[in-house]
Amino acid sequence: MKLVIVGGVAGGASAAARARRLSEDAQIVLIERGPDVSFANCGLPYYVGGEIAERDKLLVTTPERLRTRFKLDVRTRSSVESINRAAKTVLVRDLASGKTYEESYDRLILAPGAAPLRPPIPGIDLPQVHTLRNLQDVDRIKSAVDRGLKEVVIVGAGFIGLELVENFVRRGISTTVVELQDQVLPPFDKEMTAPIVEALVKEGVQVLLGDSAEAFAGEGDHVVVRLKSGRRLAAQLVILGVGVRPENKLAVDAGLTVGPRGGIRVNESLQTDDPDIYAVGDAVEIKDFVSGDPTQVPLAGPANRQGRIAADNIFGRASRYRGTQGTAIVGVFNVVAAMTGASEKALRRAGRAFRKIYIHPSHHAGYYPGAEPFSLKLLFDPTHGRVLGAQAVGGAGVDKRIDVLAVAIQAGMTVFDLEEMELAYAPQFGSAKDPVNMAGFVAAGLLRGEHPQIDVDTIITPPPGERPCLLDVRTREEHARGHIPRSANIPVDELRDRIGELPSDRLIAAYCQVGQRGYIATRILLQSGRHAVNIGGGYRTYQMHAVGALPTPA
Amino acid sequence: MKLVIVGGVAGGASAAARARRLSEDAQIVLIERGPDVSFANCGLPYYVGGEIAERDKLLVTTPERLRTRFKLDVRTRSSVESINRAAKTVLVRDLASGKTYEESYDRLILAPGAAPLRPPIPGIDLPQVHTLRNLQDVDRIKSAVDRGLKEVVIVGAGFIGLELVENFVRRGISTTVVELQDQVLPPFDKEMTAPIVEALVKEGVQVLLGDSAEAFAGEGDHVVVRLKSGRRLAAQLVILGVGVRPENKLAVDAGLTVGPRGGIRVNESLQTDDPDIYAVGDAVEIKDFVSGDPTQVPLAGPANRQGRIAADNIFGRASRYRGTQGTAIVGVFNVVAAMTGASEKALRRAGRAFRKIYIHPSHHAGYYPGAEPFSLKLLFDPTHGRVLGAQAVGGAGVDKRIDVLAVAIQAGMTVFDLEEMELAYAPQFGSAKDPVNMAGFVAAGLLRGEHPQIDVDTIITPPPGERPCLLDVRTREEHARGHIPRSANIPVDELRDRIGELPSDRLIAAYCQVGQRGYIATRILLQSGRHAVNIGGGYRTYQMHAVGALPTPA
Repeated sequence: MKLVIVGGVAGGASAAARARRLSEDAQIVLIERGPDVSFANCGLPYYVGGEIAERDKLLVTTPERLRTRFKLDVRTRSSVESINRAAKTVLVRDLASGKTYEESYDRLILAPGAAPLRPPIPGIDLPQVHTLRNLQDVDRIKSAVDRGLKEVVIVGAGFIGLELVENFVRRGISTTVVELQDQVLPPFDKEMTAPIVEALVKEGVQVLLGDSAEAFAGEGDHVVVRLKSGRRLAAQLVILGVGVRPENKLAVDAGLTVGPRGGIRVNESLQTDDPDIYAVGDAVEIKDFVSGDPTQVPLAGPANRQGRIAADNIFGRASRYRGTQGTAIVGVFNVVAAMTGASEKALRRAGRAFRKIYIHPSHHAGYYPGAEPFSLKLLFDPTHGRVLGAQAVGGAGVDKRIDVLAVAIQAGMTVFDLEEMELAYAPQFGSAKDPVNMAGFVAAGLLRGEHPQIDVDTIITPPPGERPCLLDVRTREEHARGHIPRSANIPVDELRDRIGELPSDRLIAAYCQVGQRGYIATRILLQSGRHAVNIGGGYRTYQMHAVGALPTPA
Repeated sequence: MKLVIVGGVAGGASAAARARRLSEDAQIVLIERGPDVSFANCGLPYYVGGEIAERDKLLVTTPERLRTRFKLDVRTRSSVESINRAAKTVLVRDLASGKTYEESYDRLILAPGAAPLRPPIPGIDLPQVHTLRNLQDVDRIKSAVDRGLKEVVIVGAGFIGLELVENFVRRGISTTVVELQDQVLPPFDKEMTAPIVEALVKEGVQVLLGDSAEAFAGEGDHVVVRLKSGRRLAAQLVILGVGVRPENKLAVDAGLTVGPRGGIRVNESLQTDDPDIYAVGDAVEIKDFVSGDPTQVPLAGPANRQGRIAADNIFGRASRYRGTQGTAIVGVFNVVAAMTGASEKALRRAGRAFRKIYIHPSHHAGYYPGAEPFSLKLLFDPTHGRVLGAQAVGGAGVDKRIDVLAVAIQAGMTVFDLEEMELAYAPQFGSAKDPVNMAGFVAAGLLRGEHPQIDVDTIITPPPGERPCLLDVRTREEHARGHIPRSANIPVDELRDRIGELPSDRLIAAYCQVGQRGYIATRILLQSGRHAVNIGGGYRTYQMHAVGALPTPA
């Protein structure tokens, strides 16, 4: 068996190592265009900021190590120019000498990754306009920073864009981030990104949402970025982080099918149209685990997993890729945002029925010092309660709860299962009723009809018809500090005595700070014969929705 | 409906609040022997140490709060003396006045908790010998500490015992812990507690395993503890933390069935023999989720959950308790130990077939600063791979992995599902191949036969017959720093060239530091026609097993 692998970073390197473990005899050729294999892509922003101090740390392994330990034929600075499927050969160019040669294969794995998008904007090829994909990119950016960079503009507020923001600010650089959408972190639902925007603004970052770069112009050592809004930004460095596109040219030229967004199409065994050619990683179109629809998710975890699975199939071990949940996490200053499964907007786009709840717990018992608050949004099927997606934002413990919910989604669990989860509790690690249990209680109560809830969106933008009577059941002091407009205030502890003050012929929408007292109030109202609902997630959820308009351009 | 609840801490308070949410009309009487309801039991050790500075923080709620918010008839300092099942009444004693009265019920919930065991040892009633269950106990202990306590002996190295050890040391007190078993934290498997013992010893704690208190004698302001080994320990304070027994007297006197270890027997609805009497919390015998056998698990999470379920059933919502996994966690200095599901010793006791693997990963990507190592043990069914139990010990991230595995056990997932888990990855939170994935790879490789492993126990205590040839595949330097006795050393990167040095007619047991190079070596050996296995978890696992004999008595 002769296996040729195109691309030596996450998916390609995983496939190569797995292939060797499965077969000592196979000839395994790993061809990588760049000088490095298997580098720590996700660490690049932290090398810019100095958190990762040594460049060598970014090299997960080296060509030399792969050669000795795995007996791989590693060829770096070598580019595969084309595939001859009939002859089962690839044309390889040695980038140092410029010479080309043919290499035959029995099986081929394409792991070329994805390239940063470079939209056709005037001036995009100026030397100050960078993208960040590999060690050569990071070297260029870091050397600019080390030379005493003062101002940087980052176009695109995705994961890498925001990680770079944090690291530029850490280096004392005045930083502006421009994002076409009206929110940062586009895979998330907008309201869940409000705490990230707050953290950015607090750290002095200029956040320009709903705007985009229209032109770059060099002026001396500066570049001036002209935005769609007309605003002009001057900086010594511009980073483009507006997404990636699959490196599909080889596949397309070879007549392999790619999806509408350019991902190489593969089956569950990660085989392309050509049974002798597999494809893995950021370049492929895979199945969304929740919706079953085709999608592209350029993340390291799935890429590694796919590399392993492709090697398994090639060496006779039937193995299938189940699809990607899109589990992702990002830390921006002290705020962490993580998600898994479907977002609300993805469910809306797909026209899929869902319900949602919000909670705002602490990451461990409130009586133990250092409890950090976070917000958790849970999306679930309105009929059987299956968990469809989750997002969390806040401090410590966000990663843990999203991982727990990622497993729940993988297992096809329902909100009723979340109620039952038995998670580790000591006061410095969690709560006797963990936030995941609480999310289960709130969602299950909704589905069982014992905890009717109305979404805060419906309060902010009411549908036509009669509006509910808004009832703030927090204390007078809390009400005075801020409340939803046009809401009456009866503290929950006075509600039983003052229930006569409320109309009996209108829907009463109760709310408190995070939802718990609102729930108790709703139960009291319902049992006294009123028509009542709780505004899910309370005033805190309202605030997260309302903050949206904040830093859009003037 | 008149509901009487006996006991107002975790299970009782949860039942009462849930009952009120389900019924505004019900009469709900909550009877508690102590002066407090719903206090933070699990926080008590941290109040002794000062980490929790204010006593009020330990009061999760107050009788007054329960009265106003939940319209509960809360009666503290009231003891239920007996149950008259025929008349459906309880006899209540007001502890202040000493007077008794009858209280009728439609439904009764018993939530009396468990009491610390006080074995019949001479001198056990000395005023210096304490147990820790409630706020009154903690007040006594804290006031002794505040008076300038110098030496303390803790009998019992369970969860609360070790949490107290940490807090006494934090207060500068010379601390000795005595444990009857040959390990700390008896619910864990012994080898997994080795890092805890190391941490205790490093912090100057005297750890005496395999020993027990035989007598306490007062000498001036001191108490002298005489141990079974003959050793004598002097201290101003002794804490007994040798376990708890269910408070079952009420139930026994009323003719309700209790199990062999004293837990009140209940069905899945948490109903006792008497359909009008429910029981919840530390006092009940429940089902072990993994084995299905009856067990007793005195933990706050299950108690709260059971309280809620009992109330659900009483108010017409069919709800069943699925059993307890025994998920637990403890922090001792900077070491965290957590477990879920069955331990190896529980599986051995039950005669259940299992396999196990160990890994020693970092809690996040190694290239990002601050990665803390931990050790993870996974127990699984040898046929279908179902996850049976997990234990982890180390630094940060232990809680997250045990929670993820707790959900896997709840969902009935297999080690093959662990391979597929898509967990949140950015370098400061995890790894592209998370430790849980790695555990899945190692376990699945074992079951698929592609990664044959031998347990380190079998190396330490070999069964009769020919011993395998031990092969250390680490570097010469690692080998020189310490290795398993009688092992040859061929670094993995030299193995292909030096394979001729190894016997072809004997089993070769390869090992490295944590298992990964040993796995590669095993694959190389197998494919060269040798009979080979990897010593699972490598030299680190060997060390954890070998450390056992360390601090036993002289």
